Amino acid sequence: MSLHSEIFEQPARLEALLGSQRTTVEEIARAIRARGVAFAFLAARGTSDNAGRYANYLWGSFNRLPMALATPSLFTYYQQPPLLKDALVVGISQSGMSPDILAVLEEGRHQGCLTLAITNAPGSPLAKCADYVLDIQAGPEMAVAATKTYTAELLAIAMLSAALSGSEQAWRDLQLLPQWIERVFSLDESLALSAQRYRYMSQCVVLGRGYNYATAFEWALKLKELTYVEAEPYSSADFQHGPIAMVASGFPVFAVAPQGRVFHSMLEVLRRLRDDLSADLLVISNEDTALELAHVPVRLPAEIPEWLTPIIGIVPAQLLAYHLTQAKGYDTEKPRSIRKVTETQ
Amino acid sequence: MSLHSEIFEQPARLEALLGSQRTTVEEIARAIRARGVAFAFLAARGTSDNAGRYANYLWGSFNRLPMALATPSLFTYYQQPPLLKDALVVGISQSGMSPDILAVLEEGRHQGCLTLAITNAPGSPLAKCADYVLDIQAGPEMAVAATKTYTAELLAIAMLSAALSGSEQAWRDLQLLPQWIERVFSLDESLALSAQRYRYMSQCVVLGRGYNYATAFEWALKLKELTYVEAEPYSSADFQHGPIAMVASGFPVFAVAPQGRVFHSMLEVLRRLRDDLSADLLVISNEDTALELAHVPVRLPAEIPEWLTPIIGIVPAQLLAYHLTQAKGYDTEKPRSIRKVTETQ
Repeated sequence: MSLHSEIFEQPARLEALLGSQRTTVEEIARAIRARGVAFAFLAARGTSDNAGRYANYLWGSFNRLPMALATPSLFTYYQQPPLLKDALVVGISQSGMSPDILAVLEEGRHQGCLTLAITNAPGSPLAKCADYVLDIQAGPEMAVAATKTYTAELLAIAMLSAALSGSEQAWRDLQLLPQWIERVFSLDESLALSAQRYRYMSQCVVLGRGYNYATAFEWALKLKELTYVEAEPYSSADFQHGPIAMVASGFPVFAVAPQGRVFHSMLEVLRRLRDDLSADLLVISNEDTALELAHVPVRLPAEIPEWLTPIIGIVPAQLLAYHLTQAKGYDTEKPRSIRKVTETQ
Repeated sequence: MSLHSEIFEQPARLEALLGSQRTTVEEIARAIRARGVAFAFLAARGTSDNAGRYANYLWGSFNRLPMALATPSLFTYYQQPPLLKDALVVGISQSGMSPDILAVLEEGRHQGCLTLAITNAPGSPLAKCADYVLDIQAGPEMAVAATKTYTAELLAIAMLSAALSGSEQAWRDLQLLPQWIERVFSLDESLALSAQRYRYMSQCVVLGRGYNYATAFEWALKLKELTYVEAEPYSSADFQHGPIAMVASGFPVFAVAPQGRVFHSMLEVLRRLRDDLSADLLVISNEDTALELAHVPVRLPAEIPEWLTPIIGIVPAQLLAYHLTQAKGYDTEKPRSIRKVTETQ
């Protein structure tokens, strides 16, 4: 069962990344500063796109770098790609093989932009095309559903943010990540029991905001890939602009709402869902007020800094998706209809 | 029943917009050219966010302007917003009232950027804050679910693209929009019958790509708001990076796939869904090869240019959502849990 063991490999893989790539990351940060980059232009698909959502918030708030998430079809199907003057062009891909992500990096290079590949395959076409390569050091991932490559991509993004900010406190926080994730593993047995509750669930929504907008998307993707549940992710704000109408009494809502600057806006939506709409709530948090609203509370360590909550908060979500896959009697290693490497144009 | 009549008002409203705002739009285009804008930074929620997705593709491919879709919580909850040097900051909002969209425009103004409000409320706080206002001229919209304000926002975006490109052919194409939409109205009765098929549907996915990525999102949003179906939108590329695993035999897939540069990539996915996965397909298209794959084909006029297909292609989707709401016995005017103006922070 490689999926379960790859989830449990994460502390060691993140430690390897922290230990081996800081020099490279500092060099990339120097190149970004030297070039006077105006914005980041980031291309990715699937799990890597969710890592890109984290970069969008983290680099935006810690490093004041605005980000455009690339629409690769503009580079592969339409005649004239956007002008990328003064952009840092970033491709994120576990395999470094998707032709559309490669096309964005090649165009960035063609236009003279600084280019960066974040990948688990430093010999891949994507890596060969880029000025700089951040090797996420996750080791071979055998399960079709990505887990350790996701948290390694998040950590690579967080390391670059720390290097750009020059904050030694940020680097010290990063060192503690592996042990925080170890602590989450103690939830494994109780999550296996909780998963039973959702054996017959066919649809749900997943909410997160700010840094954990990425977590909501990645959690929903694991549920779709592994358990075939139609799990739709939202920011709590977007959710209120229409989709909340779907919620009838008993409708399942999963939420990730750790302490931090967007916590109160998340709590407000959770209260409305519980008190006014009688939704069925599963909440990952380290705040009692949010956990108390949940039918199924999942408690994170209390002291994790907000900016690192996505790297830790996705782990119970991965475990829950794994156990629900088993509860539903599906294959945890090879989901139907998808392969490990998807080569979209 | 204002929803149905507002759908039918669209040709007249678009004609009013075309007739009254071209001078303003040309002036905005001159200001954009004069400022040497490097990228657009666009803030919107809900239906207006879907209009923003159209701008992302259209301004990217016709005007080579890269776009970042803003993450408003970076402006309302996190301490330091991104640096927006050389950005065109755009807010799209029917009501011009949402505090988070306003916060993005205010910050853009504070940083000395060129700012543009696209709104149905030229006296609103959003309009008052912006350097330029594009009044979408849609008239009062009474139904909670937005229809005519969506197509008017798309047209405003398309007019700005035409002005930036200086193409007289583009302006001539735009003049034909109202009559193409009139032709779609002839489908109203058959769509009312088709809607019956989905009376007991509780979930589906909605696919589109390129310019019609926006259509997939807006169609899904109408289904969620009005019929409470969990309808999840995807680009056909993203869909293959994981979510396609959800599709079991008989699973309903709605798609918008008109002729154009991404048509063959859409057709390939539709073939896989039909032939390999036995999905149940509803397809909006003007290509026989796509319509023949569908259990429920919805035919668009043959000769519409690709860049305008989103403005016409959403209309049968609106009608279908309207009739399905009636088939399910819900309120077409006031969906549960949502209001016309949603004021998120």
